[in-house]
Amino acid sequence: MTRIAAAQLSLTVGDVPGNRRSGREAIANAAAAGVGLVVLPELSDTGYVFADRDEAVALADPGQTLEGWVEAAREFDVVVVGGYCDRAGDTLTNSAVVVDGTGVLARYDKVHLWGRESEVFTPGTTPPPVVDTGVGRVGVLVCYDLEFPEWVRLAADGGADVVAAPVNWPLADRPEGELPIEVVKAQAAAAYYGVHVVVADRCGDDRGTRWIGGACIVDRTGYLAARPSLDDAPALVTADLDLAAARDKRLGSRNHLVGDRRPDLYG
Amino acid sequence: MTRIAAAQLSLTVGDVPGNRRSGREAIANAAAAGVGLVVLPELSDTGYVFADRDEAVALADPGQTLEGWVEAAREFDVVVVGGYCDRAGDTLTNSAVVVDGTGVLARYDKVHLWGRESEVFTPGTTPPPVVDTGVGRVGVLVCYDLEFPEWVRLAADGGADVVAAPVNWPLADRPEGELPIEVVKAQAAAAYYGVHVVVADRCGDDRGTRWIGGACIVDRTGYLAARPSLDDAPALVTADLDLAAARDKRLGSRNHLVGDRRPDLYG
Repeated sequence: MTRIAAAQLSLTVGDVPGNRRSGREAIANAAAAGVGLVVLPELSDTGYVFADRDEAVALADPGQTLEGWVEAAREFDVVVVGGYCDRAGDTLTNSAVVVDGTGVLARYDKVHLWGRESEVFTPGTTPPPVVDTGVGRVGVLVCYDLEFPEWVRLAADGGADVVAAPVNWPLADRPEGELPIEVVKAQAAAAYYGVHVVVADRCGDDRGTRWIGGACIVDRTGYLAARPSLDDAPALVTADLDLAAARDKRLGSRNHLVGDRRPDLYG
Repeated sequence: MTRIAAAQLSLTVGDVPGNRRSGREAIANAAAAGVGLVVLPELSDTGYVFADRDEAVALADPGQTLEGWVEAAREFDVVVVGGYCDRAGDTLTNSAVVVDGTGVLARYDKVHLWGRESEVFTPGTTPPPVVDTGVGRVGVLVCYDLEFPEWVRLAADGGADVVAAPVNWPLADRPEGELPIEVVKAQAAAAYYGVHVVVADRCGDDRGTRWIGGACIVDRTGYLAARPSLDDAPALVTADLDLAAARDKRLGSRNHLVGDRRPDLYG
């Protein structure tokens, strides 16, 4: 079994050093709890609610962020997945990486952009990467990507044991007592494709935007191994998962999550 | 608004006349409750747990079943979706129809077969049909089909306002207090594609097989308009839905359930 953690963080747009400290603390706390893989939220260095594109350009400093994660991964001997604001020249991407103590193992640019993000970011053009790590095969995608089951399917078909999803889930109305639909979608995608899913979400207030507080861990059957707190407080959500169990795609004695699909008919 | 009903029935394998009576009673009760569209479970005439293929061949009498539904639809002025055992010569299919008082509007053969069904049934080869009815555009698929989001996508892309799913969900262990993963998948599929989903399930005991009691109605946002009882008793689950609202695929002010998809990247 591998202990997995999803960090639910309160971040402040613009306070890059403070946000990085919050991420490093979460990594340290996770390691102290015996965690082998820890996931941080989307855009966890810059914050999310930019005033405009220029502000995002000014804040983006991806080299420092990634260097800090590699250092922390080395110091605490964990695998880290984190969302950050990437910049190459004048091009911004809403990105995520998988890192360990040896460096950046995989990098991904969010493809499905939400809300005003298309005014700031260039969408990615390649599927979720899947990378071998010391704890298992880790796939990565970002927030709204997780709401397209086809995208999770690509990560699962690429061999992911676990899909790590840095997110910023804005709070919206939902019926009393029900799980947010974002969580429901994460559960369903895990079950459709037999892959564990780890979601790192936000809490706090980002220029008036509130967040779900939905950090959670879904096992490959689709059930919640760690329920989201759904409150407005930082949290480190953990669960012990048999990551390699996701390689067995049988469903009962006579069905198979891959073999039962009919892509020839899906158009 | 249109009142929709999902019938949760206790059926007995082999008692075709009794099972048909249960279906007719559900249709009558739905009509008395002001329902415009009522859905009956999978294989609601023959029952599900056949001893072997020969028993299914002997029990299948689709002409009588469909005639009964058309009569009931005419008498009670409702649209009926029902699952039944179809037979053409020696070929059996796990099928469903949409009927109104004028006759059979659409017919469908289950494509994704569960468990021992492949020993009995020939799988279908065509996507869920979508048909205009007096209450709106109705798509239909059967049970395990609903666990393939691509299949719901085809119904939604085909113009369905509501996807009707006759099912027989076998009872399995689940974590205390959690919704069955089959319900979670129905919710997610509704939300991914912005289509209402109505599930008619079983209760009772079919030669030792128990059922979830999961009849439920999901609105196009993915939230439950009518929660499943999850108990072992017949029920008529109803909800009032704005069916045509499913034609609006916008998500918030800047996103779109169809426009945001990237099929060019889904492989």
